[in-house]
Formats: sequence, C-alpha cells, structure tokens
Amino acid sequence: MIDQSTICAITTGQGGGAVSMIRLSGEKAIEIANNVFKFPKNNKQLIDQEANTLHFGHIMKADEVLDEVVTSIFKAPRSYTGEDVIEFSCHGSQYIQQEILQLLINAGARLAKPGEFTQRAFLNGKMDLSQAEAVADLIASNSRASHKVAINQIRGGFSTEIANLRSELLTFTSLVELELDFSEEDVEFADRTQLTELVTKIESVITKLTESFQLGNAIKNGIPVTIAGETNVGKSTLLNALLNEDRAIVSDIAGTTRDVIEDVVNIDGISFRFIDTAGIRSTDDTIENLGIERTFQKIDQAQIVLLLLDLNQEQDQNLKQIDEIRERITDQELIIVGNKADIVDKGVMTMILTEINLDENENIVFLSAKEGLNVDHLRKLLVETINISQIDTNDVIVTNARHYEVLTKALTSIVRVKDGLEMQISGDFLSQDIRECLHYLGEITGDISTDEVLGNIFKNFCIGK
Amino acid sequence: MIDQSTICAITTGQGGGAVSMIRLSGEKAIEIANNVFKFPKNNKQLIDQEANTLHFGHIMKADEVLDEVVTSIFKAPRSYTGEDVIEFSCHGSQYIQQEILQLLINAGARLAKPGEFTQRAFLNGKMDLSQAEAVADLIASNSRASHKVAINQIRGGFSTEIANLRSELLTFTSLVELELDFSEEDVEFADRTQLTELVTKIESVITKLTESFQLGNAIKNGIPVTIAGETNVGKSTLLNALLNEDRAIVSDIAGTTRDVIEDVVNIDGISFRFIDTAGIRSTDDTIENLGIERTFQKIDQAQIVLLLLDLNQEQDQNLKQIDEIRERITDQELIIVGNKADIVDKGVMTMILTEINLDENENIVFLSAKEGLNVDHLRKLLVETINISQIDTNDVIVTNARHYEVLTKALTSIVRVKDGLEMQISGDFLSQDIRECLHYLGEITGDISTDEVLGNIFKNFCIGK
Repeated sequence: MIDQSTICAITTGQGGGAVSMIRLSGEKAIEIANNVFKFPKNNKQLIDQEANTLHFGHIMKADEVLDEVVTSIFKAPRSYTGEDVIEFSCHGSQYIQQEILQLLINAGARLAKPGEFTQRAFLNGKMDLSQAEAVADLIASNSRASHKVAINQIRGGFSTEIANLRSELLTFTSLVELELDFSEEDVEFADRTQLTELVTKIESVITKLTESFQLGNAIKNGIPVTIAGETNVGKSTLLNALLNEDRAIVSDIAGTTRDVIEDVVNIDGISFRFIDTAGIRSTDDTIENLGIERTFQKIDQAQIVLLLLDLNQEQDQNLKQIDEIRERITDQELIIVGNKADIVDKGVMTMILTEINLDENENIVFLSAKEGLNVDHLRKLLVETINISQIDTNDVIVTNARHYEVLTKALTSIVRVKDGLEMQISGDFLSQDIRECLHYLGEITGDISTDEVLGNIFKNFCIGK
Repeated sequence: MIDQSTICAITTGQGGGAVSMIRLSGEKAIEIANNVFKFPKNNKQLIDQEANTLHFGHIMKADEVLDEVVTSIFKAPRSYTGEDVIEFSCHGSQYIQQEILQLLINAGARLAKPGEFTQRAFLNGKMDLSQAEAVADLIASNSRASHKVAINQIRGGFSTEIANLRSELLTFTSLVELELDFSEEDVEFADRTQLTELVTKIESVITKLTESFQLGNAIKNGIPVTIAGETNVGKSTLLNALLNEDRAIVSDIAGTTRDVIEDVVNIDGISFRFIDTAGIRSTDDTIENLGIERTFQKIDQAQIVLLLLDLNQEQDQNLKQIDEIRERITDQELIIVGNKADIVDKGVMTMILTEINLDENENIVFLSAKEGLNVDHLRKLLVETINISQIDTNDVIVTNARHYEVLTKALTSIVRVKDGLEMQISGDFLSQDIRECLHYLGEITGDISTDEVLGNIFKNFCIGK
C-alpha cells in the first residue's frame, strides 16, 4: 500500500554549504518540477527530457527568477525510490531552499516524512528492509569499521542468506502442511532428514549472527573502554595523548543514550569510546564507596578495561590495584598501563612484570602519557584486542538492535523446531513452530512487516533520505 | 593565468544531511573520476559518457565498494566553472566524504581553495567579478530582500550597465589620446559635448548606486533597529512577541563582526536586526552614565530607533524620555512604542498624542507586548519605514563594501573629468583623469583585477563554491 503523493525534502546538510539539493519523488515529480523550472533560453520543457539527464535553468516564483539550478531527472523504476525523481541543485541559502520547497508544495507536492524516500525504495522493491535500515547506518558511519559493516549490509549483507534459508524452509512447511491434509494416510512429504539438516544450518547461521552482535554494536557505537585508576594518575593526560596523536574525533555519539559525554577516539579506523571513572581506591568513606560502585558498573559495561598506574608511587599499592581489578573483571580484556615510565627506574617495571603473571586476556604497557612515550604501543594493543579480522573478511555482522532481537526470537523458535523434529512431534505442532520461525526471519528482510514496524524504523531516519 | 590543476571539494553543508555532493573541476576531472568510479553491472567507462548525463555506480577504494553514488558529468565550456566538471552525490557520512576526497587527491586532484570554483568561473569568462561576488551573497541570503538583491546582481545587475558605460568612455579616451598624437594640429576627435553628456550620465548612475549602499548594506545585514527605553519596560517581552509571531530567525549573522549577538527578525521578507540597549535614564552614577553613552552610540548606528515606554508609569517621565531621544536622534526614523496599553486608561494615550507633535520621521504605536495586542501594527510600521519599493522595482542596489568603495573613487574621478571638461583642461590631463575613472569602473566588473583583489574577494567564500 504505497502512498501515491509526490514528496519533497532537502536532502543535504544544513551547515552553510555552497550547494543544496532538493529531492522530489512520486508520480507527479516531473510534472511538478516542470511547473517551477524554466529553461533560460528556449521553450524546452522539463517534461519532455530524457531520463538520467542534467539541465541548467531557473526556478521561477511567478515571473521572477528565484534561483539558478541544475536539475537531475530520473524516471521510474530507475531511481532511488523506484518512482520518478527530480533533484534540484540550488544555492545553499536557507531562504532559497525554503522558497523552493514552498513552490513545490504549492504545485502539489508535500513534505517528505523522515526516511520516506528510503521507505518508498523498500516498498517499491528497490531494497529489502535490512538494506533500508543500513542506509541510515551508512550515513551515520564515522569510522572505517562502522562504514564497512554498513556498506556490506546495504549491498545485501546477511539478508540475502536469510531470505534464501527462509525460502527453503517455506517449501518444507508447505510439504509438512500438505501431510496434514492427508493425515489419515500417514504419508511423509517432507523428508525429515533433509528438514533436520536445513534447520541445523539455519540454527548455525543465526547463532553466528547473534554472536556477532556484541562486536557489531561496538563497531557501530564505539568499543567501550573503561579507564580505571586512582585520581591524579594521569588519566586525562593519557586521553589527550591518544586524542592528539590521532587527530581524533572527540564528540558525542549521535543516537546513543548516555548520561555523560564520553571521548571517542578513532584508531586505525576503529572507534573507541573511553569511559572515565572515579577511581578504585578502597576506603571507608560512604561517598567514595559510591564512586567505587559506579566505577565497577562502568567496568561491567566495558569491553576493554585500562588500568592506569602511577609507576612513581609505592609498588605495593600498584600491585594491590591490579589484584582488585582482576577480581572484578569477568570476560573483559585488561590492559595494565604503567604511566610515568620516563621517570622511574627500569627495575620497577621488571619487578611488576615478575610479580604479576599475565593471563591470556591481559596485557601490559609502560609509557609516559605526558611525553607521548610508547603511546603508540598502547594504540596498537587496543586495536589488536579487537578481533577485526571479522570485519575484514566479508563475514556479516549484526549491528542493528532490531535485527538482534528478531534473530534471538528466530533462534529460540528454530531450536524448538529442531527439538520437535528429534522428538518426532506431530506435523501440526511442527508446522506451527516453523511458521513462527518463518515469521521472525521474514521480519528481518521485511517480507513480513507491519506499519508499526516500518514506522519505528523510519522515524529515526533524517528527513530527506 | 588559470591554474591548470583539477580541484575537488565537498560543496554541500556539513550538518548531518542524507546526501552530500563532491565536486571536481579541471582538465582531468573526468579522467580522475573515471579512476574511482565503476559502473556496477557492465564495463562502461565514465570517460565515454556524454555531457549532462547522470550515472549510478560505485566509488571504488582498491577493489572494495566505498559508496553507491550518482555521478553528474558536465563538459567544458558548459559547466559552472567553464571546465570539465564531475559531481558525485554520495551518502552524507563524514567518513565517506573524506575518503572520496582522499581517493580523488590520490588520483591527481587537489583540494579547492575557498571560492576557487567561482574564481575559475570568473577567469573563464562565465561571469564577471561582481556576479561572482554575488554568488557568496546569494548563498548567505536569508530574507526576501537580501535574496532579491543578490539574484539581481548574479543575473547581471548593475555591472552590465557599468561595463557598457565604461566601454563608451573607453572609446572617448582613445579619441582624446589620438588628439595628443596630433597635438600640434589642434584637432578635436572627441566631441566635447557628447563626452560631457556621457560623463554626466556616468556621474548620475554612480551617484545613484553609491546612494543605494546604505539601504543595500542594511538589506544584506539586516536593518539596524535600536530599542531604547528604561529597564523593565518590557523590551524582551516585545522582542519575543515579534519573534514568536514571525516564526523568526533568531541568530547570529554570519560574516558581520559585532561584540554582542543581536536578534534578527524577518518581517515580510525584510531582516531587522534588533539592538538592545541599557536604557536612557539620566543619572549621576558614573557607571550608569557609561551605559547611557553606549545606548547613544547604538542609536547612532541605527536606521530605526524604537523608544519603548511603560504607559503605566508617570507620564511626565515618558514625555521627558521622548524629549531626550528626540534630542539625540539625527536622521533615524523614530517609532515611539507605548507598552502596556491594555492596562491603562485611554485618556493617557490621547494625552501623549496631544503633547507630542509627530514629525515626518516619527511614528507612534500603542500596544501590549505581553498580550500580543497591536504588535502587528508595529510590524507594519517597521516595514513601511523601509522604502522597499527600491527593492521591488528592478533598480539595482549596491550591497558590497568593495563595490561601494570603488564606486566612491570612480565618482570622485568622474567629477574631476567633468570639472576638467568645464574648465577645458588640456587633453593629456583629461585623458589621465578618464583613465583613472576607467580603472575604477573596471575594478567593479573585474575587467581590471589583480591577484590581490581576487584573493581578497574569494578568501571569504566557503570551500566548495
């Protein structure tokens, strides 16, 4: 059920650009554009022009020239939305952009809702739902890794595989359901061995995908790195050293809800989200204990914990801190960072290395944040800690919380199907379980979608996409 | 002397748009684009495609797809710069934009300097200098009036007229200079009557243009309106009433240097720049007197002064304020605004109207800022105060400080020519004066330009234009 109206919006950013682009899509796009666009030197009409051509001319407001623009013509179905599409490249003035929109609205278009162009592309079969969702991710991508995941997804990603598996499963369901019609005859159209093979394969694929979500989510939002350590040990100096050396993007991450703004550093194309903590010194003071509790919570949220030590203080205290943090850590990676390595005796470092036995998920680096000494080594450790081979191979990664949620449900139902097959449950129960699984798989690709699901997906898009 | 390199830049705004555009201009634009762009389904090459066509495809980074884009091809001389131009419409991700620029640079392009595309358009004869300057004004235009002035200028404006007058004057100079070669024979090739006519015409045109600068400048930067009145008389309430009713643009004005951020309200397509003041109450307090001095300075800067009175206070005080402000005002328009008209007796207003005799440049309005009563009348008064008939007719208006400066010099020199003609000075002096005038006129259209002048003009452009 596609809305037949012609929609328009500004598709380019609002920050003082030289050029802006206004997009118009729908049955009447070319007709409406023809009403406001005039060729400067002859009586040509936009409506007579070929698809995929560019035309210089004037946007007219009554008989006055509002702007000089370049118009692009795309004709259905060869366009982004699959409909007729017109794009005007106009001057980047706010006034001009608003006036052009007003002219288009007066000529019969209406303002597009957030993501409505992409929603139409989905509804017109130009892309499946997970591809449509990846469009927003691609626009928001600000690192090599998040870009890679988004572009993989937009170019098909895992949804093609899911769609194929779903289609195979659908065939089996039909066969199982056919058996129900002949239930008195005890026939078996659906080969149970083949069905079990398919179900096992689906289980394996979905398991891999759900497992990729932790990494995928981290790539999208930045790998969470909690910095633990006492106050004044040089946390902000270290962060600045990492930031400066990387010409880092320090910013709030759009779309994630956090109570504090964290520093995001892009290292070798991976975003790391550094979470500062109050410190972990044990004390009897209630208020300080609250701070420690918060530190522990932030350690729980992290994928990597940086324990920053001041090498220039009593080593007993440092070793005690290492013990404390080790007690708290579960499956996070721990990087012990000995700071102020430039002003201490080398014996200190040897002593620490001897005293502690590094586990597999542990690393240690001695550096001077202030002098920028060995900071590069820390950067390397951070990147190595993340298994980015997963990103570099074309393995698919789930980054979308909706996909993760639906995949988890699909996994539960496919396991139920598998169990049912083992227990040789009756065809009607089996069919019911498979139908449920088909439903969830279909929700990922958009084969099954409700207005509510679509509404939730596209409301988070920007207007103009 | 045109730089032959191929330049590239992001031309669209940076504020989170769905789409961004990257422009490439120069001899190798299409070749460079061809290196990074791949048709998705066949072996077509961008380099073989026709001018003014659109192509969907992939930007390739080595053998990986960086983005899916639409490419526009323009071929010299039919492009904005007059050179071969490629425009990529890519996804609005910062990462993608930076990567594409990097690919283009690796393939042989370099980053464009501010305004360099427009500078090339000027150097390639696609527009004259005053048109090129108007491109920046058009992009910055944020009201109907500033847009109108900029689009008039971009479409030829006064520079065509100046160029024609200059060309006529040039002919006369040649004739006057020819006389010098035959100086012994006392011939007169240049008809002095016709020359005087032309010079008088030029004087009249330039005078009109320089006189338009005050209005032009105000249109471009907003008409300065100083609000005077005691504290607590309702200044901010009034401003809010004006703002809210107009869905106003309240913002800093880009490109103007001010020590405070003023409120800009767009009324009927005219921008008014409201300058708040400390108040004008007389006092012996030194610090408060400083405030009053500043208020007076702001009155001097204004084109319109709003004197805001609290009708609900002693009328003697109000009348005293009117007297004080009248003393200070020179050629500004004065609008006396009686606030809190909703809670005072009508007799008060009649009394004030009787006591003061409104001058030609004075107006009075009674309103309630809090209740929004009669605020519309004030808006109407503000707009009427400005003679926008000048804008609505196609009369040309000078908005550019450089043009104003050069025009002022041209005016001085043309007056000297005129005086010289009257005094029948010798041909060599006359020729010298005319040459000076020709020089200044040429500086407006860009017939005469130095690297320094061009540098100053284009450095204020944004990159990408």
